[in-house]
Amino acid sequence: AKQRDDTLVASADTVSTETGKFPLQHILEAQQFDTELLNSIFQVAREMEEVERNSEGSQVLKGYLMATLFYEPSTRTRLSFESAMKRLGGEVLTTENAREFSSAAKGETLEDTMRTVEGYSDIIVLRHFESGAARKAAAVSNIPVINAGDGPGQHPTQALLDMYTIQREIGHLDNIKVGLVGDLANGRTVRSLAYLLAKYTGVQIYFVAPDVVKMKDDIKQYLTSRNVHWEESSDLLEVAANCDVVYQTRIQRERFGDRVDLYNEARGKYIVDTKVMSMLPEHGVILHPLPRLDEITVEVDSDPRAAYFRQAKNGLYIRMALLKLLLQGY
Amino acid sequence: AKQRDDTLVASADTVSTETGKFPLQHILEAQQFDTELLNSIFQVAREMEEVERNSEGSQVLKGYLMATLFYEPSTRTRLSFESAMKRLGGEVLTTENAREFSSAAKGETLEDTMRTVEGYSDIIVLRHFESGAARKAAAVSNIPVINAGDGPGQHPTQALLDMYTIQREIGHLDNIKVGLVGDLANGRTVRSLAYLLAKYTGVQIYFVAPDVVKMKDDIKQYLTSRNVHWEESSDLLEVAANCDVVYQTRIQRERFGDRVDLYNEARGKYIVDTKVMSMLPEHGVILHPLPRLDEITVEVDSDPRAAYFRQAKNGLYIRMALLKLLLQGY
Amino acid sequence: AKQRDDTLVASADTVSTETGKFPLQHILEAQQFDTELLNSIFQVAREMEEVERNSEGSQVLKGYLMATLFYEPSTRTRLSFESAMKRLGGEVLTTENAREFSSAAKGETLEDTMRTVEGYSDIIVLRHFESGAARKAAAVSNIPVINAGDGPGQHPTQALLDMYTIQREIGHLDNIKVGLVGDLANGRTVRSLAYLLAKYTGVQIYFVAPDVVKMKDDIKQYLTSRNVHWEESSDLLEVAANCDVVYQTRIQRERFGDRVDLYNEARGKYIVDTKVMSMLPEHGVILHPLPRLDEITVEVDSDPRAAYFRQAKNGLYIRMALLKLLLQGY
Repeated sequence: AKQRDDTLVASADTVSTETGKFPLQHILEAQQFDTELLNSIFQVAREMEEVERNSEGSQVLKGYLMATLFYEPSTRTRLSFESAMKRLGGEVLTTENAREFSSAAKGETLEDTMRTVEGYSDIIVLRHFESGAARKAAAVSNIPVINAGDGPGQHPTQALLDMYTIQREIGHLDNIKVGLVGDLANGRTVRSLAYLLAKYTGVQIYFVAPDVVKMKDDIKQYLTSRNVHWEESSDLLEVAANCDVVYQTRIQRERFGDRVDLYNEARGKYIVDTKVMSMLPEHGVILHPLPRLDEITVEVDSDPRAAYFRQAKNGLYIRMALLKLLLQGY
Repeated sequence: AKQRDDTLVASADTVSTETGKFPLQHILEAQQFDTELLNSIFQVAREMEEVERNSEGSQVLKGYLMATLFYEPSTRTRLSFESAMKRLGGEVLTTENAREFSSAAKGETLEDTMRTVEGYSDIIVLRHFESGAARKAAAVSNIPVINAGDGPGQHPTQALLDMYTIQREIGHLDNIKVGLVGDLANGRTVRSLAYLLAKYTGVQIYFVAPDVVKMKDDIKQYLTSRNVHWEESSDLLEVAANCDVVYQTRIQRERFGDRVDLYNEARGKYIVDTKVMSMLPEHGVILHPLPRLDEITVEVDSDPRAAYFRQAKNGLYIRMALLKLLLQGY
Repeated sequence: AKQRDDTLVASADTVSTETGKFPLQHILEAQQFDTELLNSIFQVAREMEEVERNSEGSQVLKGYLMATLFYEPSTRTRLSFESAMKRLGGEVLTTENAREFSSAAKGETLEDTMRTVEGYSDIIVLRHFESGAARKAAAVSNIPVINAGDGPGQHPTQALLDMYTIQREIGHLDNIKVGLVGDLANGRTVRSLAYLLAKYTGVQIYFVAPDVVKMKDDIKQYLTSRNVHWEESSDLLEVAANCDVVYQTRIQRERFGDRVDLYNEARGKYIVDTKVMSMLPEHGVILHPLPRLDEITVEVDSDPRAAYFRQAKNGLYIRMALLKLLLQGY
């Protein structure tokens, strides 16, 4: 396991597109990526946008098998990975609901499941309900593991596609102003995004959240330690006027239990609507990890600055890039 | 959405196999088809019967991805579509139970789901529990949508395969006599079939249904307006003796709620058995959309005029034809 | 059905690798195999271990479609079959939960389902909850059927992979000593294994089971009739010291109903741990059909004689061999 741990964090100078070797063995968490590695992945993702049907590039993973091992359903993420694999000529083994496979059903450990499935495939995409599951899985796996979300833990490919979308839409990642809006306490998405943004220079972050779901102190302290300017605001219009990116998130009802009153209060507070759009700079964009309920009104969809469906599509390119890099290198 | 609506109904003279363009963008309902279009689809379906393993024709959809988005399970229909896609060299993304993906789970609209999935695939096959869902989905989709059944609404590929089977088995669609038997009130299958048959000349239709599930007035009026001869009968033997096609259907228990007595009464009333077969002309055939319970006895299966499993197989050819036409044209 | 029944048991002299024809039409039960047939399958499985990505051998089933029709979930078995098919260039139609397809849902018989699905695919892998289902399915199917487990009935591909693993690990199947440990009353795995072992010469079998789940008399009588030496023991250490193979199995909680006390008593009785390993000869191996709970301690995993994950992998090769043989012959 020692050797594997070494590959979890790749320092800048281990990234070598000359040798062609991708420095990571597994994709487990946002902390694995520095800016050089991010930029190299984004470059490959950009190339993936240009892969044409039945071109040579569309066959680079021919003969490879990806297993999607999903212990909780997430059709969007699963389809995105499976599309990515197939767009590159690879094949897929699907498990929409792996829970019956394992502990829940007969008591098998995740480690045993991995040791079996690695015999049937070349790469495993794991979605799990327990924080840390991906790391546990990778520790015993001889083939690459991609964390497709492990409970309240990490969802690194979402963080990468968010960053990639900002770069694609705004043109750069340094010196940007980002408003993070909605459920900042529970959303692993915004937490990972804040973490990765902090690696770039001149970034300014604005938190806009209902009182009950404010950004937690650990991320704030981290941002401060990285000299990232951040502030909290309760004025979404003002933040929109100041930002390049407004990243809206869904208030997650499932986090409120019986407190429907708190949920309803939080839910209606910050809505991206045409009024917000009227404040947003012309070059600005609205992002959202999806699914959205009514925290962005449908009138906004036709605004060219509504980038959330392009963002979802970028998930495809990022996953194509990661699959290619893990299986074939640069 | 204007442009898309134009393509919903193709008039005869827009069908041009010379230019190679298929006039429909989506397959949503039986009303989209006139006889010229039907005949052109049937011709392609006929060619599909001849596609051989690993031949050039078996690769016409290589590089294309079909997403099967099923909000209610229908293994038969799903497997038929997926087989069709793979028989033509295409690839498939499967969602056996998309309900968790959407409204039911987190409240996402069908439109948002479509906007996401269209980024991952080239064509979407949609099965939904709500009437009109396919039309709603197509209105926002930039890629072709095929309605694989939307609740009590439409199931156009079933209607096409039924018509194709009659043509294949009897040799023509004009001047035929068809007995529609069983649940005529609730079966969307027989309603669509009656609607499409009315487009041909010299068609005669006989309705044979228990009192509680008789054919509704709208279809009767439509047939009358098209000068189609129709009559109701309670004598299945006599109808069988007179018909080219006896189309039997299942009495759907789920339509009767608590009225098990009514269900049982309706269910046993018209059974296709060896006695009925003894009346059917030698060139006649028995069709059934499947699954069947006991409304056709198993003794009938070995009769060469029992065409319902050939009918199921024709679903494969019709779906191959539609996938090819929507993605590649004629 | 007469013709099909003839092919159920292949006698030695019908195996002809010269003509290239595989003597079985379906894989239904362990009783179909004699030693010559087993050895010919194992030879093909061995070749399958050498199939390289994108080699010619990896495309022998290109253009073929396998349908996995699973009426009860078994992700391990399903993934193994699907991987096997794809490793040979074939395609897959998946049904993770076919129960909704059929009787349970609308009352369709398994026979009708088979007649439909055989129209969409070239080979069917069936998992069912009822003993005898595979035989019923094969009786109406015009394409090959592989039994992937039918309830308390048979699971012949597991039996084959167990035998193959013993041959691969020990080098031969004659003159071996095998300890069967754990739930010998309910485990169809150990019953089939005992049955197949009896076909070889000089085999000695040791049963080590808690009182409530002892090996049943039918197998004991069969072994005696085949002149196989067998004995019962309650001393796992002694058996391990004497054996080439210790085949451990899981005590299946689901068999004990409310008698949790009996389950717990049975469960803890015979554990393969480092102490057992210290007794096992150097050339010996530990097998297990998986999943395992704590009947083999995790410390054992790192011992090179722990062969159970290699055994799981061998399932892939055996299934590749069977798919190839049924669809293409030798």
